Amino acid sequence: MNKFLSDKANSVIPYVQGEQPKDKKYIKLNTNESPYPPSKNVKKAIIESDFNDLRLYPDPDISDLKNIIAEKYQLESENIFIGNGSDEILAFSFMAFFNKKDKIYYPNITYSFYSVYSDLFDLSEKKIPLKEDFSIDINNYKNLDSGIIIANPNAPTGLLLELNEIEEIIKTNLNNIVIIDEAYIDFGGESAIKLINKYNNLLVIQTFSKSRSLAGMRLGFAIGNKELIKGLKNIKFSFNSYTINRLSILAGIEAFKDEEYFKESVSKIIITREKTKEELKKLDFKVLDSKSNFLFISHNKVFAEDIYLKLKEKGILVRYFKQDIIKNFIRVTIGTDEEMAIFIKVLKEII
Amino acid sequence: MNKFLSDKANSVIPYVQGEQPKDKKYIKLNTNESPYPPSKNVKKAIIESDFNDLRLYPDPDISDLKNIIAEKYQLESENIFIGNGSDEILAFSFMAFFNKKDKIYYPNITYSFYSVYSDLFDLSEKKIPLKEDFSIDINNYKNLDSGIIIANPNAPTGLLLELNEIEEIIKTNLNNIVIIDEAYIDFGGESAIKLINKYNNLLVIQTFSKSRSLAGMRLGFAIGNKELIKGLKNIKFSFNSYTINRLSILAGIEAFKDEEYFKESVSKIIITREKTKEELKKLDFKVLDSKSNFLFISHNKVFAEDIYLKLKEKGILVRYFKQDIIKNFIRVTIGTDEEMAIFIKVLKEII
Repeated sequence: MNKFLSDKANSVIPYVQGEQPKDKKYIKLNTNESPYPPSKNVKKAIIESDFNDLRLYPDPDISDLKNIIAEKYQLESENIFIGNGSDEILAFSFMAFFNKKDKIYYPNITYSFYSVYSDLFDLSEKKIPLKEDFSIDINNYKNLDSGIIIANPNAPTGLLLELNEIEEIIKTNLNNIVIIDEAYIDFGGESAIKLINKYNNLLVIQTFSKSRSLAGMRLGFAIGNKELIKGLKNIKFSFNSYTINRLSILAGIEAFKDEEYFKESVSKIIITREKTKEELKKLDFKVLDSKSNFLFISHNKVFAEDIYLKLKEKGILVRYFKQDIIKNFIRVTIGTDEEMAIFIKVLKEII
Repeated sequence: MNKFLSDKANSVIPYVQGEQPKDKKYIKLNTNESPYPPSKNVKKAIIESDFNDLRLYPDPDISDLKNIIAEKYQLESENIFIGNGSDEILAFSFMAFFNKKDKIYYPNITYSFYSVYSDLFDLSEKKIPLKEDFSIDINNYKNLDSGIIIANPNAPTGLLLELNEIEEIIKTNLNNIVIIDEAYIDFGGESAIKLINKYNNLLVIQTFSKSRSLAGMRLGFAIGNKELIKGLKNIKFSFNSYTINRLSILAGIEAFKDEEYFKESVSKIIITREKTKEELKKLDFKVLDSKSNFLFISHNKVFAEDIYLKLKEKGILVRYFKQDIIKNFIRVTIGTDEEMAIFIKVLKEII
């Protein structure tokens, strides 16, 4: 307790992000980054840009990047919102679509930042239990009385809802905002972006941090009805006029335009993921059928936290969550084939 | 009114930043950017950096930049907070140091974003009138009953409080947070950073956007007692784990280290400012004695809004605020000598 701090600053328990070691000697399979570098055009565009212009504020509307995204989805620039990572968009969404004390529904096992936001903004979180197999039962999300947020694929399970299931939730909640957090959608799911023109209660959030290999540049985007986007903009422009810097805008444009490279790296990750699933099953791991760039796995002989610690000791970082229902699982980001071969080899030594 | 939006997203009136024209044909004297490019070392460091690493999240603690700032002021890294522009730090400060409905004191004429934050976070703003000559009467700030924020030099007046006056406010408010927003301090004032170890109720906020020529990279920093910084961090890590991207960190480090270039550009701006003051006085302008990188001026024959519009017509952007007490003033950023010569020439044609 410090007397100068607000109640919230004294009480809130921040989100704990995965370890980001600075020495770089680890094989990093803990924060779901891409194992592949961003498109070569990112470097080219930045190097060729006029560094003298860094003295000038960036475009507060980020029009060039919005236009490219709008064009791809045959939407308008007013349907797009750009944020400093999808986390910033999530934070703004909690402010833009919920009043203090409003209920917000999400699965009991999901991206744990949602709970932090609920606390930070004094919402009343309603956690809906996953099924025994860790999947989402969409029947629990029909005809609710307040807004909903669902990560699809869900984290840290990696399990996917099909688009028709997502649509079922949206259309049975026409009076509630439905936010679909698609951070991992490119690794095997169908995006709800194609439903934007059909439903004015739908907001889809994506990120450049995973499939676009730009975690280091902090970019995310949201797509929705113009009125929803206007609400997000009202909050953002009351918070920080310029959240995206000049070089991140350039990086985003090039990464988004390089569709070929994007598809190539995503498909390499999917192939490695499926191969790794098989290897892990051979080692008697329970492996959820992830459609993301990570696997959620559990072994019935060796406790997950031990596996996590032993892997770390041997130079491999994975993510372990000390949360009751999932305490015997570790989350493993899909790395390169070479990294996953080492991972499997070390795992064999451990179990 | 949109039924999916929160009351705040429906009602808040966002801060209106200065125009950021995309065509670049204007002489831009409207958003207080530096007329000089950032240190050459910024470009060098970015170009030589490993672009493959952009796939990885940045250091969430931003230690390298914090350490350099801490070292300069003989403080510790725990005294430093880095934000995505000083605006983000201001937003976090309103969350970290004030509860809903708390009073917050600031001058009636100051950076207008403070009022937007007060509204966004439901604080009770208490505007203290400036004196007739637009200066701050520090007697009005002694022994208050809640937190205070003061821009020093103040904006858009450019008028400075001396460090002993700032200290007087701090030491007569030992139970209240006192935030000194020093966005423009490098252009002629003495920073309150040297009082950090003496007062635990003091937070100083600075920016890389003005004197460091990095508005385009979005960087600001706050310095204060470790407990205050911890409060800011609690809010920040509950909002967005990674607000500063990899290249902004590199840019910030190089800009901060290049003290010689920093001093050189700041002193050029000061010389141009003083010269411009004299020129404007010769043209019968009332010119406040700004210690910042902008001038706040008024003419008794031509109405400020007309001057603003005519300057714009002739390709020069300055800032005009439609606010009662200052409605006959324009704010003019100090550009290069060449830009200011054109500005004065065009002004002569107008008046």
